Amino acid sequence: MKRSNRLVVLTEYFLENPRKHIQLPYFVELCDTTKSSISEDLDIIHEVFQTKGLGYLERTTGAGGGVKYIATSSAESSREFISTLQKKLEDPARILPGGYLYMSDILGDPSMVREIGRVFASCFAHLEIDAIVTVATKGIPLAYATASFLNVPVVIARRDPKVTEGSSVSINYVSGSSRKIQTMVLPKRSLPDGSNVCIIDDFMKAGGTITGIKSLLEEFSATVQAVGVLAEADDEEDERVITDYTSLLKISPVDIQNHHVSVLPGNYQME
Amino acid sequence: MKRSNRLVVLTEYFLENPRKHIQLPYFVELCDTTKSSISEDLDIIHEVFQTKGLGYLERTTGAGGGVKYIATSSAESSREFISTLQKKLEDPARILPGGYLYMSDILGDPSMVREIGRVFASCFAHLEIDAIVTVATKGIPLAYATASFLNVPVVIARRDPKVTEGSSVSINYVSGSSRKIQTMVLPKRSLPDGSNVCIIDDFMKAGGTITGIKSLLEEFSATVQAVGVLAEADDEEDERVITDYTSLLKISPVDIQNHHVSVLPGNYQME
Repeated sequence: MKRSNRLVVLTEYFLENPRKHIQLPYFVELCDTTKSSISEDLDIIHEVFQTKGLGYLERTTGAGGGVKYIATSSAESSREFISTLQKKLEDPARILPGGYLYMSDILGDPSMVREIGRVFASCFAHLEIDAIVTVATKGIPLAYATASFLNVPVVIARRDPKVTEGSSVSINYVSGSSRKIQTMVLPKRSLPDGSNVCIIDDFMKAGGTITGIKSLLEEFSATVQAVGVLAEADDEEDERVITDYTSLLKISPVDIQNHHVSVLPGNYQME
Repeated sequence: MKRSNRLVVLTEYFLENPRKHIQLPYFVELCDTTKSSISEDLDIIHEVFQTKGLGYLERTTGAGGGVKYIATSSAESSREFISTLQKKLEDPARILPGGYLYMSDILGDPSMVREIGRVFASCFAHLEIDAIVTVATKGIPLAYATASFLNVPVVIARRDPKVTEGSSVSINYVSGSSRKIQTMVLPKRSLPDGSNVCIIDDFMKAGGTITGIKSLLEEFSATVQAVGVLAEADDEEDERVITDYTSLLKISPVDIQNHHVSVLPGNYQME
């Protein structure tokens, strides 16, 4: 296979398989070429990925050595993207009765969701994560987007057990903002004991739901390595029951009288 | 930019932006090169995508002409992938009390989910689709995967209205298999009137849920262009209330006594 064709094949392979460790002989056979040619191809791809802020190729040498694509978002493009989100969310047309903010269109846009996932994956790139955990419903697309870049499965906790998932573990917890008692369940099969997990959700007020997931995860002896939320409510900081989390956005209480919303960048930090 | 670098840049761009119409001058500037060089690059990428069964580049000439990546899955790789799914699902360890089949691990695997989306996008590649509609919860990842290849938004109907989504339209419908009355709601803002939609779900028994979504969509004057389900129950065909759908798999009733599951390919047809 010619270099030009190989570059297309390899680029596609890396983008579709982030964090998958591949030994060079696999590519040598796939592209019907030599090891040194593949090695040069990888140099080119690595350079372009770095320049474009898409991440990098991590190469290891020696027996069992190979290459792995680590997908990240550069600090600059993350900042730009988050500022786009801010502007979108500050549109007063989003204000709903009760001072809520309409966000379903953003969460319904696959490319926007994918970009959010890329930013989370960047923030958590240095952590050991075996699975992404979220709670139905709105966090689901964000959880998948993040998981696809980290190459790990998604586990979904629910408010109501489903007969099609077998036996499950459930807990009751007190919702932080409404002070209501709620239930959350996770099928027993869905998460191996002792996993390292990252919790992803769309929105955090006082943090009751996240605390609920954490208690549920204790039953699975899981270690919570990170918590990522797209947006946090800016006014709940005093009430907040969790402190260790990453948010991409901070939303102030809606000023209903003046029809105004203020959205700030969250506390996220790039690796 | 050199050809080798351009090929990486362009390949990444197409894969991240399927079905986006791009005029050549955009790439000329992005890669700081000439129109004829870009044109040759596109030939190379088109050829590799076709050979690898990843789809093709659709080029239009004249004023406003440009290029668009149509992501498809070749008939052969779809068949192979569906046969892998079959084998996975036929594992007797999946049998749950009540004769249900555990599928959450498959629906929790981002790369598997993405591949399912690719197959659906292939089946529906020739249709005009403005949005993917699904109902919470299990169909959501499949809906996003399909939507990402078709470059359209996802709209999620729910069993319970959420205050954070504003005013919504709701209907009551009779569930096909359990004959229970159920409710389904869709926020008014989520779908423009008169849209062409594709319904995606994970599993179909008698088809009551799909019929429910269809009735709800009538309130939005939407045209249902296609219905795609990952799996259909093989024993419900006589009871089925809908006939026009695409399934990737057909699951026979679980033989609890002999601990046996039989899974067949669905009725899907590649374009």
